[in-house]
Parts: sequence; C-alpha cells; structure tokens
Amino acid sequence: MSKILIIGGAGMIGQKLAHRIAAASINVDVTELVLYDIVDATKPDAAFSVQATSGNIADPEESSRLAAMRPDIVFHLAAIVSGEAEKEFSKGWNINARGSWQLLEALRSEHESSGGSYRPRVVFASSIAVFGGPYPDKIDDDFLCAPQTSYGAQKAMTELLVADYSRKGYIDGFSMRLPTICVRPGKPNLAASSFFSGIIREPLNGQGAILPVSDETRHWHASPRAAARFFTKAATLDTSKLKGRYSLNLPGVSCTVAEQIEALRGIAGNDVVKLIRTEPDEAVKKIVSGWPSNFDPQRAHALGFEGEKDFAEIIRVYMEDDLV
Amino acid sequence: MSKILIIGGAGMIGQKLAHRIAAASINVDVTELVLYDIVDATKPDAAFSVQATSGNIADPEESSRLAAMRPDIVFHLAAIVSGEAEKEFSKGWNINARGSWQLLEALRSEHESSGGSYRPRVVFASSIAVFGGPYPDKIDDDFLCAPQTSYGAQKAMTELLVADYSRKGYIDGFSMRLPTICVRPGKPNLAASSFFSGIIREPLNGQGAILPVSDETRHWHASPRAAARFFTKAATLDTSKLKGRYSLNLPGVSCTVAEQIEALRGIAGNDVVKLIRTEPDEAVKKIVSGWPSNFDPQRAHALGFEGEKDFAEIIRVYMEDDLV
Repeated sequence: MSKILIIGGAGMIGQKLAHRIAAASINVDVTELVLYDIVDATKPDAAFSVQATSGNIADPEESSRLAAMRPDIVFHLAAIVSGEAEKEFSKGWNINARGSWQLLEALRSEHESSGGSYRPRVVFASSIAVFGGPYPDKIDDDFLCAPQTSYGAQKAMTELLVADYSRKGYIDGFSMRLPTICVRPGKPNLAASSFFSGIIREPLNGQGAILPVSDETRHWHASPRAAARFFTKAATLDTSKLKGRYSLNLPGVSCTVAEQIEALRGIAGNDVVKLIRTEPDEAVKKIVSGWPSNFDPQRAHALGFEGEKDFAEIIRVYMEDDLV
Repeated sequence: MSKILIIGGAGMIGQKLAHRIAAASINVDVTELVLYDIVDATKPDAAFSVQATSGNIADPEESSRLAAMRPDIVFHLAAIVSGEAEKEFSKGWNINARGSWQLLEALRSEHESSGGSYRPRVVFASSIAVFGGPYPDKIDDDFLCAPQTSYGAQKAMTELLVADYSRKGYIDGFSMRLPTICVRPGKPNLAASSFFSGIIREPLNGQGAILPVSDETRHWHASPRAAARFFTKAATLDTSKLKGRYSLNLPGVSCTVAEQIEALRGIAGNDVVKLIRTEPDEAVKKIVSGWPSNFDPQRAHALGFEGEKDFAEIIRVYMEDDLV
C-alpha cells in the first residue's frame, strides 16, 4: 500500500522509472504513482492510479504541496543539467540545491505533524559530477567530493542534506551517484555529457553526430534501463546497511570514446561509425576533463546493485528499449 | 590598504585572531578591522580603526550590510557549536548553513555591482567534524566527507559553497578544517569537544574537571595560537596553489586523553591531575566516537601551515597565553 512520487517524472529517467513501476518491476505494493515535473509528464498505463502534476520545484509552496501528499517513496530526479547550471549560476543553485532543501524541509514538516510516524523513503539522484580531479586509477568508496562544476556542488550539497535528514530520522533516504546515462534516447540536451549518447544514437538513426572531445576520453556509463533498475531497487533497500554513509557510487562501465566507437562498429558496422565527425569544443572538453572515468564501487556491489558488463551491452539495451 | 572583517569576532578564536592582527602579525597593510558577532566584541588596541558591530548572521539583511562594507578579507568563524546544532536542528541549519550561503550571496552581489573588481579573500573556518567513520589510521587529503553530526554537515555544505563561489571568481576563498582547539581559555561551552580543554584548563586553575569519555579516546588538537596563525597565514595564501581543491585539512597533534593527562602530569604534577574525575556521558561519547583522530595533512604542510609538535607544547601555549 505505497504511494510513489517521482520528482522529475517527465524526464528521461523519470519516464523509464515510471514505466518500470507500472510494469510491476518494483518490490512494492503500489497504490498510486504521482509524476511531478516542470511540465506534465506522460502517464504510463498501470494497474493503479497514475497522476501527473506540474510546477517549479524551486517554489517552496510546491514542496509543501508535494509533501502533503505524504508519498511513501520519493524519487528525487529533478535538476537542471550541468551545462545549464554552469551558465546560469543562480538558477542552478536555486533549483538544484535550494529546491531540494525545501523539499526535505517540507517532508520533515509532515514527519513532525504526523507525530513522527511519517518517514518516507527518499532516493536522491546524485551524480559522479560530485567528484573532482586529480583522480586515482579507480575511485574507491572513500574518495573525496571536490566538485569542479556548480552542478556537481549542488548535487553534493543535496547529498549532505539527504544524509543529515536521514540520520536524524525525518526521512529514510540516501543518494545514488549515477554514472553518465548512455545511450539516452531522444534529442541531445544541454548536459555537457550529451555527446556520449549522441555519437551512438545519431549514427544508429542514420544521422551525423559530433564528437567534441578526444577519443581517448574515458568515462563511466550505465544504461537508462540500469538507472531505472537502480531506483526500483533503492525503493526497498535496507538502509541500515549503509552504516551511516548515505551516498553510494553506483556500478557502471568504464571505457574510452574509442572503445564506445569500436563497440558501435562491432554491432552496426563501419558505415554507421562514419557518421561520427570530430569537432573539438573547448568548453565541453574543459567540463568533461574534470569528470571521473573509473570506479571501484564495492559498497554498491555488496548491496546488490549491478550495471552493464561492457559498452556493447549498453548499445544493445538502447537498441532493444529505444531504437524505433 | 586592507579592510578586514571577522564574522564571529567575539568568539574565542575571533578574539585571538583580532589581537594577532592588531599586533601586526599579518602580512597585510590593515586600515580597518571590523568585528562582527551576535554580541559586541571586545576591541583590541590597534594602530588602525577597529569597529565592533553586532547582529544575527542568519538574517539576510545582516549579510548585505556586512558585504556592503566591502571588506578585502573576510574571516568567517561564526557558528553555533556541535552540541547545540545537534539539539536544535533548524537553528543549526539556519545559522551555520543558510547564514553562510546568504553571506556568500551578498558578497557575490557586491562583486557583480563592482563590475567584477571586488573579489574578497574569504577564509571559512571549517572543522574535522565534516568527516565520519570508519577511518583509516591516518586521514589523508583525499578522504571523503561523511559527517555524522548536523554541525559537520553544515560545515561541509558551506565548504561546497565557498568552493563554487571561488571557482566562479565571485570570491577568492577557501576553507580550513580546524583541529579541535585546545586548550580553550575561559569557561566550558556547549561543544561536545569542550572537555578536551576542560581536563587541562580546570586542573591548572585548581578546579575539578569531568572526563566524559574513555582515556583511550584519541583526538586531533591545535592551540588557539596556532588557529589564529592559520588564519593570518590564510589571508595571503596564493590560492592558485590549491589547484581547485578549496578545503584544507590543517596540521594538529594526534594524542589520546591518557597522553593529554600524562603531558599535564609532566608539566603540572600529580596533584593537578588528581582534579580530573571520570564521569561517562553517553551523549558526548556517541558524538566524539564519530570524530576522526589522526591526519596526514600533506597539502597544508606543503603550503606552510604548521601546528604544535606535541600536546605538552599545546599546554605550554595555554600557560603562556591564557593562564592568569
């Protein structure tokens, strides 16, 4: 008998997650699903009630309205993306950080007014952008956060809040640092990481794609399907197993752009790969060069989180789930 | 020709720092010193103008008022202490985190209205309470923040803000994670760490002291004199040497309570040590058990920050500077 709220429910991961929940691929007896976003989300067919409602999470009244629904599980995926947060300093801090804080305050207020019985599971979508170089070969679970973008700082700040509100028992939450999600379906977005998907997706759709960085660039990837699975698993994770560390580095595939391209060649052939054109973009290179590229996510593995085994699998997931 | 603002100027470290600046022990041509706190601070005699002004840093108008003074150097030391922040959740987040954010926003606003020429040095007093166990034997400069108190989370959040505002060039700041300051002069305070000073200070003043934890408890200490020196050094640090990592673990002395007591015995004798009475306090033990106890602060050493060499030196500094 659980009500689920997805904040950022119109976004790509939000939609994947909503469909996964609608397909009963979550170990929860769902009675209602609420999709919240800046625009009305598409509602999946489901055996339970699905609502879509829209608003701006930076508005404190919106947080109160959402918390008043007393969702049992809150998936918080809403954010403006890295490129936009870097260009629009105030907007980024207001939506990504202050908005998240207000949400947690509104949930705490419901916790208090319930006499302490209301204590929702909150799963916050954080990012590997919380890290900053120089990096070891593989980042372990004890490595510091030193974000080199405003987006990363805003994610790291929200992690601190989720951790402290959870530690105090106002919510039962934690943060998951998602790998870059690849291959994203649909169109390019403003995220500096957008090209990692574009160089696979556009060629597979017969379109040209621009590679703005060197093909030696190594990065850390998981598919949208893996991301949705991380969240449904997170809904019922025994959080006592986190032992007071409320942020998790999630599993992914570490590979270079060249390895991405070779995986694409193996699956789709040389003519498809020829659709990729290199066109260096210094702004994107600068942001991406500050990102981590390889992890040893032992805690997440021990808790049962699993990503893909190689980049070819990531391409096949895209072809199965999203290629029309 | 520098105007210096100390936020938290009435506090113990704020006063030590003010006196150090008044004694010209700072490599800056000071023209004015402003001491800000919730109460009016005592003003040291100085060869330049010293003002004391009071207010609540959680009030946004106060941040604007302080920023409008356009201080060249801002030492931000204001906080409610760990024990109080743990008991009063909203008050702690409001003063320690939101207040700091408002201050940075006000400084950014002055930066913008100056056309970018105003870009103050901001030195934020953070704490080893940003860390959480389990710990390695010595914490290195790459170790994660996983605060286990609200106070620690608030300090870690402010660090993220100071870093991002600095990275964007609105301020020229960084954060220093101070060891526990010991021996604090004066009376016990609400900090859970208060006893580390009390067990030295009270006996040296002929008074009984309570030890609320096991004498095997290891901790990380620096004297008030070292703390003031850290800040005056920070005023003129070449921040480009931080290489995008805006938080520094500072040097200290790692020792157990038993070693503290033996150092006291060596300096002041057995009768003085006998004034310490063990009286376990589970609440204090729980907080302190989550704190780190030993560091390898290589970056701070490389930048020229130095603490004391052993706990006996820390006791002698207290006797020289504060024992009446």
